[in-house]
Amino acid sequence: MFSFSVVRRSRTCFLGHTSLCSFQFCNYFSASSHELEADLSHPIYVVWGSNTGVGKTLVSAGLASSVLATPGSKFSYVKPVQTGFPRDSDARFVYRKVSEIFSHREPEFALAASNHALKASVPAAGEVAGASADGEEGDGVNGFRDLCCYEERRVLGSGSDVETSELVCKTIYSWKEAISPHLAAEREGAVVDDSLLRESLQRCLRVCSGLEALGRKERLWSVIETAGGVASPGPMGSLQCDLYRPFRFPAILVGDGRLGGISGTISAYETLKLRGYDIVAIILEDQGLANDIPLLSYLRKRVQVLLLPHVPEDLSDNLLEWFEKSQKIFSSLLEIMLAAYLERIEQLHDMPKKAGNIFWWPFTQHKLVPEEIVTVIDSRCGENFAVHKNNQDTGVIAQQFDACASWWTQGPDATLQIELARDMGYATARFGHVMFPENVYEPALRCAELLLEGVGRGWASRTFFSDNGSTSIEIALKMAFRKFSSDHGIDGETMGGNSAERCPEYKVLALKGSYHGDTLGAMEAQAPSSYTGFGQQPWYSGRGFFLDPPTASISNGVWIVTIPEVLQLGPQKVEAATFSSCKELFYEERAYSDLAGCYSSYISEKLLQFSESVGGSAHIAALIIEPVIHGAGGMHLIDPLFQRILVSECRSQKIPVIFDEVFTGFWRLGAESAAELLGCTPDIACYAKLMTGGIVPLAATLASDAIFNAFKGDSKLLALLHGHSYSGHAMGCTAAVKAIDWFRNPLTNFNLTSEGRRLRLKELWDNRLVLEISSHSSVLRVVALGTLCAIELKAGDDAGYASLCASSLVQNLRKDGVYMRPLGNVIYLMCGPCTSPESCNHALRKVYRRIRNDFSQDSRKDAFGESDLGHAV
Amino acid sequence: MFSFSVVRRSRTCFLGHTSLCSFQFCNYFSASSHELEADLSHPIYVVWGSNTGVGKTLVSAGLASSVLATPGSKFSYVKPVQTGFPRDSDARFVYRKVSEIFSHREPEFALAASNHALKASVPAAGEVAGASADGEEGDGVNGFRDLCCYEERRVLGSGSDVETSELVCKTIYSWKEAISPHLAAEREGAVVDDSLLRESLQRCLRVCSGLEALGRKERLWSVIETAGGVASPGPMGSLQCDLYRPFRFPAILVGDGRLGGISGTISAYETLKLRGYDIVAIILEDQGLANDIPLLSYLRKRVQVLLLPHVPEDLSDNLLEWFEKSQKIFSSLLEIMLAAYLERIEQLHDMPKKAGNIFWWPFTQHKLVPEEIVTVIDSRCGENFAVHKNNQDTGVIAQQFDACASWWTQGPDATLQIELARDMGYATARFGHVMFPENVYEPALRCAELLLEGVGRGWASRTFFSDNGSTSIEIALKMAFRKFSSDHGIDGETMGGNSAERCPEYKVLALKGSYHGDTLGAMEAQAPSSYTGFGQQPWYSGRGFFLDPPTASISNGVWIVTIPEVLQLGPQKVEAATFSSCKELFYEERAYSDLAGCYSSYISEKLLQFSESVGGSAHIAALIIEPVIHGAGGMHLIDPLFQRILVSECRSQKIPVIFDEVFTGFWRLGAESAAELLGCTPDIACYAKLMTGGIVPLAATLASDAIFNAFKGDSKLLALLHGHSYSGHAMGCTAAVKAIDWFRNPLTNFNLTSEGRRLRLKELWDNRLVLEISSHSSVLRVVALGTLCAIELKAGDDAGYASLCASSLVQNLRKDGVYMRPLGNVIYLMCGPCTSPESCNHALRKVYRRIRNDFSQDSRKDAFGESDLGHAV
Repeated sequence: MFSFSVVRRSRTCFLGHTSLCSFQFCNYFSASSHELEADLSHPIYVVWGSNTGVGKTLVSAGLASSVLATPGSKFSYVKPVQTGFPRDSDARFVYRKVSEIFSHREPEFALAASNHALKASVPAAGEVAGASADGEEGDGVNGFRDLCCYEERRVLGSGSDVETSELVCKTIYSWKEAISPHLAAEREGAVVDDSLLRESLQRCLRVCSGLEALGRKERLWSVIETAGGVASPGPMGSLQCDLYRPFRFPAILVGDGRLGGISGTISAYETLKLRGYDIVAIILEDQGLANDIPLLSYLRKRVQVLLLPHVPEDLSDNLLEWFEKSQKIFSSLLEIMLAAYLERIEQLHDMPKKAGNIFWWPFTQHKLVPEEIVTVIDSRCGENFAVHKNNQDTGVIAQQFDACASWWTQGPDATLQIELARDMGYATARFGHVMFPENVYEPALRCAELLLEGVGRGWASRTFFSDNGSTSIEIALKMAFRKFSSDHGIDGETMGGNSAERCPEYKVLALKGSYHGDTLGAMEAQAPSSYTGFGQQPWYSGRGFFLDPPTASISNGVWIVTIPEVLQLGPQKVEAATFSSCKELFYEERAYSDLAGCYSSYISEKLLQFSESVGGSAHIAALIIEPVIHGAGGMHLIDPLFQRILVSECRSQKIPVIFDEVFTGFWRLGAESAAELLGCTPDIACYAKLMTGGIVPLAATLASDAIFNAFKGDSKLLALLHGHSYSGHAMGCTAAVKAIDWFRNPLTNFNLTSEGRRLRLKELWDNRLVLEISSHSSVLRVVALGTLCAIELKAGDDAGYASLCASSLVQNLRKDGVYMRPLGNVIYLMCGPCTSPESCNHALRKVYRRIRNDFSQDSRKDAFGESDLGHAV
Repeated sequence: MFSFSVVRRSRTCFLGHTSLCSFQFCNYFSASSHELEADLSHPIYVVWGSNTGVGKTLVSAGLASSVLATPGSKFSYVKPVQTGFPRDSDARFVYRKVSEIFSHREPEFALAASNHALKASVPAAGEVAGASADGEEGDGVNGFRDLCCYEERRVLGSGSDVETSELVCKTIYSWKEAISPHLAAEREGAVVDDSLLRESLQRCLRVCSGLEALGRKERLWSVIETAGGVASPGPMGSLQCDLYRPFRFPAILVGDGRLGGISGTISAYETLKLRGYDIVAIILEDQGLANDIPLLSYLRKRVQVLLLPHVPEDLSDNLLEWFEKSQKIFSSLLEIMLAAYLERIEQLHDMPKKAGNIFWWPFTQHKLVPEEIVTVIDSRCGENFAVHKNNQDTGVIAQQFDACASWWTQGPDATLQIELARDMGYATARFGHVMFPENVYEPALRCAELLLEGVGRGWASRTFFSDNGSTSIEIALKMAFRKFSSDHGIDGETMGGNSAERCPEYKVLALKGSYHGDTLGAMEAQAPSSYTGFGQQPWYSGRGFFLDPPTASISNGVWIVTIPEVLQLGPQKVEAATFSSCKELFYEERAYSDLAGCYSSYISEKLLQFSESVGGSAHIAALIIEPVIHGAGGMHLIDPLFQRILVSECRSQKIPVIFDEVFTGFWRLGAESAAELLGCTPDIACYAKLMTGGIVPLAATLASDAIFNAFKGDSKLLALLHGHSYSGHAMGCTAAVKAIDWFRNPLTNFNLTSEGRRLRLKELWDNRLVLEISSHSSVLRVVALGTLCAIELKAGDDAGYASLCASSLVQNLRKDGVYMRPLGNVIYLMCGPCTSPESCNHALRKVYRRIRNDFSQDSRKDAFGESDLGHAV
């Protein structure tokens, strides 16, 4: 039976007491979903070990005694996970050793030290005097008991003006067996969830630092010591380097000075780098092998490497002499850590100004972006940004849900992101980039296969790679035009020679409001808009024949199809159609409706008008549509029935059909492709954005055999002479292979559900909440489909892309932890294919709350708190 | 004093002898520059350890005894680096243990085993009986002695028809002290160069397998056992995982079953992945901690994890029982390894066919690419591809120098590639991709800073990111047009409204033969060519005013400027100018030459002609040039004087100047930018390709303040409304930051040299050799500048982009280990900014040899071998 005890030493004045109260932490372990923040008010470091038994705790103690040597300083040491408890307690070691060191220091140093263990598994608690004796489990955490282990001591300095330094040591969770935490947790029936562990750690850090007055940031330090090696499992089995990643605290790595230790240290360093950590210094014990020298050389001095004196092997040695000898090293380490901390703070503060001075942001009027609204993104973890918030002296790093999915590119959850990190490292080391044409290499081949088996299933047989959506469209147009020429016997080369006059003009058939990219060819395929004026690109002329499409959305709780006036060709006005669900919109039976007839006559009529007006001098040589949703045009759902009829009409006229799935592809709308949702296939389709999971740019234009064959011939000049240097680059293809598979595999994507023989995402946005939002007086319409939930705000005269009506709402939501970027008066939430419905609805509730609070027409303003929305979720 | 001995056992018939001859290996260690190959005729694996002392040698022995159980099989075990020798010898352990196991096996097994140690440091050799007694060093390898340690034994089976299996164990280099090889090498004064070590290993593997008859690939195995952990330094101090990387043999990782071993094993696995290795299985000793379970779960079963029985700790245990118990595990491991080997072979064989069926390669007439000429790229390491060559049954993986720098993108040497791998892993884990507009994050900021300090120094103040050269050009054009409108008081929006007629037409001034990309806007800026016909893009009209430029090249040993007929405007014909060196072409003094006057009048005359012909309805609204070299147009060096005068003329007329540095930027031509070479600056410039070192696509359009300000205003609609989803993506920016710095830092780029206050690449192509090539009868001209050496072959009627005249030359050079992709009849070698002149000239000599052999006009054909070219290098 172990009991914390208080030790008296010569020259120390003992004022401590063993406290049995755990009141300080009564709310400590509640499972609230409070968002994580990393405090920047003072240096917080994590001490990692390149192996077990390399001396992490010695380093922690050394750092503590170095910090505390400055009178009035405070050092908090946290051990979140301790096994072998209570026999082993690193916190106790630090507490005792630092106290001892102070007892032997000159009398001008005064120290108040405490050590507190918070929770232990039942077997571990059984070893501790004072643990709650009954069998009850504390605070709903399975298998743990609250500990009442608290000890403190003071080492008083002699001078009356000596400011006391303070050491606070805490162990959060502990287990009895001296084995890996995941095993101990399992064997002792005491498992703590990763997110709970993180919250506990955050609170613990707050309690430790929060008791302090501000303005002493360089005298307040926190150090978190991990258990075992960098990739040792935590209590839930996830690796500690993954478990603590959301905080991304800067790291100190304790290296291994033994034989083989160079390898172990470099590998541990690389494991941390592969999680996105910044390692400020490596410190290791001198074992006479000069391991520091190759380390320093290999790391090219990017990381400081410090060597500690050899630790006496005699277990009876109290190490005081060793700490004495190591003092200078720990001071150096501390200086390095402080410098890195201050540099980071300074950088974070300077970044908005620097960015405003040298960046040229796309789609951004720089004059409207003052320094204050620039977001400093320190990192991302899964769906969340970690942004620097300046709301305090030095600020915090706070989480923001990336609700625009970073321009619709993002798919990874935190797990996939780390998998991709390893794959990206591997792909760089194996390939970097290698030449594509006439060559083959594994990732490009596998990626092409996955595309053809997946989004191209049933129609596509060739993959043409490029770099982004816009280039994939330019390629698609070239493909379609050649096919059209070949099908319609038009040989532009012989007809026109070098004089363009005699060549027929080619136009695309497209829908108003669609958008296909910003390079000239892609621009030409879209109707005139804010993006296409003379001031933007004088070369734009709009080489399309553009139709008005009917759109669908939820208004006042009902799905409704809105039919433009121009579609009303018949004598009888066709009424707007309503639907009980989004699914109904996609029913095949709609082909037999009146509306289908109306659409069909409109389309044939328009095509006829066109061909009559041009009299053979021009042709509609391609149809290009964004299937199901117009993205950049304002998140309009186009009536699927209309697009189906359009495709069928074009096919009957041998006009090649291009689907622009850059936005819609890869589960964006709940199916792997929008073509699948629509229930018809194109001849050519373009993919980008989500294809790599959102890591690097890559695009693919898929084509049918018939399209491909139009480029076959005996001369190279007949080939498609279009290419980009990084065509089929290994990095992008590797990421795509991982992401495509991850999203479509039920073992990794828990959102998948079967619908007939097809896979679909389950509903991610709570339907009741969506309907409620659509009924709000300030909301014009809502479109919720797949990973998208778009809300158009009533904007009056201020509608459209340049509208500022959502600006303050968006700024407020950023404070709430939701990062949005509106399309004028259309705001939207977008998640990844694997994002949990809980996260989605958590964000959606925040949006609804802000809408109700910020838009005053609603009488219920301010009357509802988040809890009131509980019924809807 | 240790001496190899021969041990008799019961039931074995001993036929062995201790041989003192080392004749078998007399040529073994010569330092020839033979290219590395990885033989695929049988399984070759490397056994790595996640730490020292985890049992690599037990695994090797276990594998050997499993393989050899098949009668007539052969197992070669190679230990390239052994410290602690001769006391420790892993090869001897394998040799003895497997012999012992066989001695205890059923009599149907027969074994011939041998053990051979080849080279030892002088101190280690001193411990061995039979090492050459005098102080001489063997074969020019510093500090080593040839060993004459050879032992062999036979275990005879009883049946007369028993096929004997064969075990060959070899130690290549050995040192006495049982410490890390880099330390032992230093202390014992016996250092072996990495490349020599690789060559030795390759020869050793060849000797081991080459003695065998073919057709028994599944019965022939080679295993290489590393020393210490995966990242333990080799004899030169480079890490073993880096040292052996060029072979990229598949790996077996021996994990760590001890406490902390999960972490160490995962980290070691990640270190191998970060070098591009494929790990086929992890095997570890059971220490009662069930480390295999979290490993398997963490690795998502992608890698098999096997658990070996606990190894008896009693040192006197002969382990025979343990091997007996482990037999099933080793058999499973062997099955996994064999399956992986066979799968790899099959994949390599199938890839060309599959690729031909589903890829749509850019710029490729598929009909002209039969399966046989498709190159299977297994990996790249620095400047070299590792390609699958089908020249034998199962083929080999051979090195090919990537002489087209994979469409001009490549910069990394092997060291930078691995650095980039770590950085890419880190960037993925830290950021993946995050939204760029109105945001800031470290890599994008740092990248923009490096660009403005470097290629943009002195003129640029803003960085606009996009994805590739073509998009960066589209952006540049938009920037230039707006600036032109603003400078010349043209407001297209108010002038034209929605009817295009009243808007003035904008044209670019450009040079014939220049190329800027394949999207429509970029195409429009280039003169009509094979790429721009109706069959390629019916929308192309050529919105430029195109001038004929004078070009420079080396012909018959002299630099000469060729002046097009159209430039001859004056009464007196201007003669072609000759120069003694390329540098002279760039002399500023040329501004005062007659030629300058000629250029100047031509340019002003043409501009005048243009404005007279259009009469105000059209404007030249931008100048766009590829400074110094027209890349895709055929590697033509444009007379710098002409481009200088052009720029100066445009500036005087307030026509914005765009430099397309997509090809020329980042040391491609020997200076960080071609603008620097040219000695004049643009208003806008485009960069891509080499910017990321060649890892991922990223482009930047840099602009001056004056350009940027033309987009400032109170409305978002005045902003540059162009953007790509992955704008400023963290991966690309991270790579760019590393590469830009690496290339311009003399500590990492050894090719840098100072020229005045400027940094330049030293001459990479031997000038004498270049001049000699330019004098060859089949060579029309040569351009050697920076990393480029282009050779135009005389092609007669078959000149131009579709020319096939270089085809067989190119195919032959691939056999020689040089991967080229010609531009019609122009062939070229291109290296990275850090490639050693030795590598460059090695490749150039191969090219010259092929030119002389393949083009028959030359009477000297076949008379010269490579050695004859020695004088030129």
